[in-house]
Amino acid sequence: MSSTVSFHGGPSGPWQVTAMAAVTGPGLPPVPRLAEEDAAPASGAWCLRGVGSNHRYASRAELDGLALRQPPLGRPEATCAALIPIRKSSAWWAMAQDERLALFTGHNAIGLDALPGVARRLLHCRDLQSPDGASGGFDFLTWFEFAPAAAPEFDAMLRRLRATAEWSFVEREVEIRLMRASG
Amino acid sequence: MSSTVSFHGGPSGPWQVTAMAAVTGPGLPPVPRLAEEDAAPASGAWCLRGVGSNHRYASRAELDGLALRQPPLGRPEATCAALIPIRKSSAWWAMAQDERLALFTGHNAIGLDALPGVARRLLHCRDLQSPDGASGGFDFLTWFEFAPAAAPEFDAMLRRLRATAEWSFVEREVEIRLMRASG
Repeated sequence: MSSTVSFHGGPSGPWQVTAMAAVTGPGLPPVPRLAEEDAAPASGAWCLRGVGSNHRYASRAELDGLALRQPPLGRPEATCAALIPIRKSSAWWAMAQDERLALFTGHNAIGLDALPGVARRLLHCRDLQSPDGASGGFDFLTWFEFAPAAAPEFDAMLRRLRATAEWSFVEREVEIRLMRASG
Repeated sequence: MSSTVSFHGGPSGPWQVTAMAAVTGPGLPPVPRLAEEDAAPASGAWCLRGVGSNHRYASRAELDGLALRQPPLGRPEATCAALIPIRKSSAWWAMAQDERLALFTGHNAIGLDALPGVARRLLHCRDLQSPDGASGGFDFLTWFEFAPAAAPEFDAMLRRLRATAEWSFVEREVEIRLMRASG
């Protein structure tokens, strides 16, 4: 079984929200703090829930390359974070695996260029179908952690990803930037 | 969003259970009838829930080939059905996409050989993570409908699939055979 993670936006939590932007489509209600929990006790203004799942596009060579360079989550110096929920269009999901894979080409290479500075976690929510709509209609929740010095690399990665053909299928994207709260 | 389907095994429903077999791993409690519902009001001895999702392995050429030959669900002559819930091992899910795709080769061709006699529907439940365990720990629910005359083709398809390298990763499989109840 995969592991479920819930992100609660609201009045409390160890992450301070420094900016929220509606990149494509509607945004999310503004909140001052974010908390991540493995279980899902609802609290706060919104709750986004996703599950870790298997890789859908990465090859063994790519996974081995990632394993060599990707940092773990929770590094003490990684005081910056970003939560980026994304929904892709029905046209994306109607494509066959080889068609989506062809459009995905380059995504992993762009991500590799941000390593080892940026730690990343991908959660899936398209198939969750929670009756309470907890996944907010998103397909993915991506979570990133990095030191302040790596912020330019992170920003460059976002710019490059958003310029890909794959991203033309993104119909909703919200960018939530965070800093670890000091107290 | 994908569509959720629930299979309820219990005392009532339009499908009469003619046989239940634990092919690999533990079986399911025996029931006389099966009902399928789009919503999920719990009833009966067990409930298996899945969602229609995007294709994970099929190429455009394979999907186009399928579209030409696959029959719809609900044909009046298709009075036989089978529900086959499956769970694959953690070793399967830990593989990269190209590794799983290589093992999947042949699966679609075996399925094509059973067309146009056998209608098929694949539902995913690995990522559902329902708190009530409604997906029963399975990764997939496969549903088949066919006329009695196509039963030998269906049985041959199952035999061939179970002899593939892919199937060595199946750690739980239950076969539930059904006939449309006459009254």
